[in-house]
Amino acid sequence: EIVAEAAARIGQGPLTGKKVLLTAGPTREFLDPVRFISNPSTGKMGLALAEAARKLGAKVTVVLGPVGAVDRTGLEVVDVVSAEDMAREVLSRVEAVDWFIASAAVSDWRPETRAPQKVKKGESPEVLKLVRTPDVLAEASKKVAGAPRRPLLVGFAAETERVLEHAREKLERKNLDAIVANDVTVPGAGFGTDTNRVTVLSRTGVRKDLEGTKLQVAQGILELLLSLPPAVPGSGR
Amino acid sequence: EIVAEAAARIGQGPLTGKKVLLTAGPTREFLDPVRFISNPSTGKMGLALAEAARKLGAKVTVVLGPVGAVDRTGLEVVDVVSAEDMAREVLSRVEAVDWFIASAAVSDWRPETRAPQKVKKGESPEVLKLVRTPDVLAEASKKVAGAPRRPLLVGFAAETERVLEHAREKLERKNLDAIVANDVTVPGAGFGTDTNRVTVLSRTGVRKDLEGTKLQVAQGILELLLSLPPAVPGSGR
Repeated sequence: EIVAEAAARIGQGPLTGKKVLLTAGPTREFLDPVRFISNPSTGKMGLALAEAARKLGAKVTVVLGPVGAVDRTGLEVVDVVSAEDMAREVLSRVEAVDWFIASAAVSDWRPETRAPQKVKKGESPEVLKLVRTPDVLAEASKKVAGAPRRPLLVGFAAETERVLEHAREKLERKNLDAIVANDVTVPGAGFGTDTNRVTVLSRTGVRKDLEGTKLQVAQGILELLLSLPPAVPGSGR
Repeated sequence: EIVAEAAARIGQGPLTGKKVLLTAGPTREFLDPVRFISNPSTGKMGLALAEAARKLGAKVTVVLGPVGAVDRTGLEVVDVVSAEDMAREVLSRVEAVDWFIASAAVSDWRPETRAPQKVKKGESPEVLKLVRTPDVLAEASKKVAGAPRRPLLVGFAAETERVLEHAREKLERKNLDAIVANDVTVPGAGFGTDTNRVTVLSRTGVRKDLEGTKLQVAQGILELLLSLPPAVPGSGR
């Protein structure tokens, strides 16, 4: 944190003095002490965004799901496991930041109950009852909706079909400034890869296709966000 | 593979000329293209066993679940995702090896169906129907039960309560030569850590407690396996 602050203070980047909050990685929703529902996110795209934002001078906080050992240089990292943890850590910080970028692949459901001990095979109910987890980005958007200094809100849509359609719907429903859409079935895009191919859509109608390493794609996303028009007084932004 | 073979040929270790088959890591059981049931295994214990066996001269094959980037030096690695994949790769190899050590944390259940596209939140059935996956070690044990040259079979029991009781039951039910029991709720033991604390039980009644780095624990396990009495003619071993 000290390093990031120092970098932000001495830096002359376009994000110097700005606070960027990011989520990255998957979440895990445990059904007993050793089993969970999750997804293949490795946090690479979110951490590339964190690195790119830090290099532009921002003070970056990453709320990070379980991804194993990663480079945390210059970042404030808040480690979380479940969607509920992630929502709590984001909601306590989102009002104080300039940008919130929700790149984590948050589990949409969790098991209704979590058994205190490992469930033995013989005991299996053979049916897992699921309940919805908090929608971190939608809740963050609601929380800052009436704020005098609403942060820029950016979402991600990892889809397997009708990608742009789903992304546009999410952009509007969650009242975002921009959304990064990617088709995770395309080779060289999506989970675990070092490269990505995405389409960024803004609320103002900009559409930008980006391809390259995740760091290059991250830089392209931040450039687009920096080019968006400033908040219109009275619009909620 | 070439390196491992060369090492085994020039080596003078107690496992020189022996083939060791290992499973390591978790499995993932997908319910749609982006969501799965899994567990926190990182494959570290299994890969430590692989390294230790290789250093003793063995030709080592690791059937490895999804664990991200790991050191594969000198190992033949077969990458798999699901329990079904793992079972298939093990069953096609187990008859040809001297030792089979099943250290992977195999998912006991998988979703009954796998949706071809990402399930949208609104479409959720809210109930996930689970079916049992193949028991890789039990199936391997059955497959070699009548073989003239039955491999040494070693299991793992990651438990959260009544650890030794569960381990002994597994040892007998799956007809193993030894089992490595660990209480994954103990700090410094189990999933993702670099250290471990285990108890090894053999079919011959040996009990050995081991503690240290995963490589040290791996070496202790292999020492114990090397000390077991040779197969008794007519006993199936």
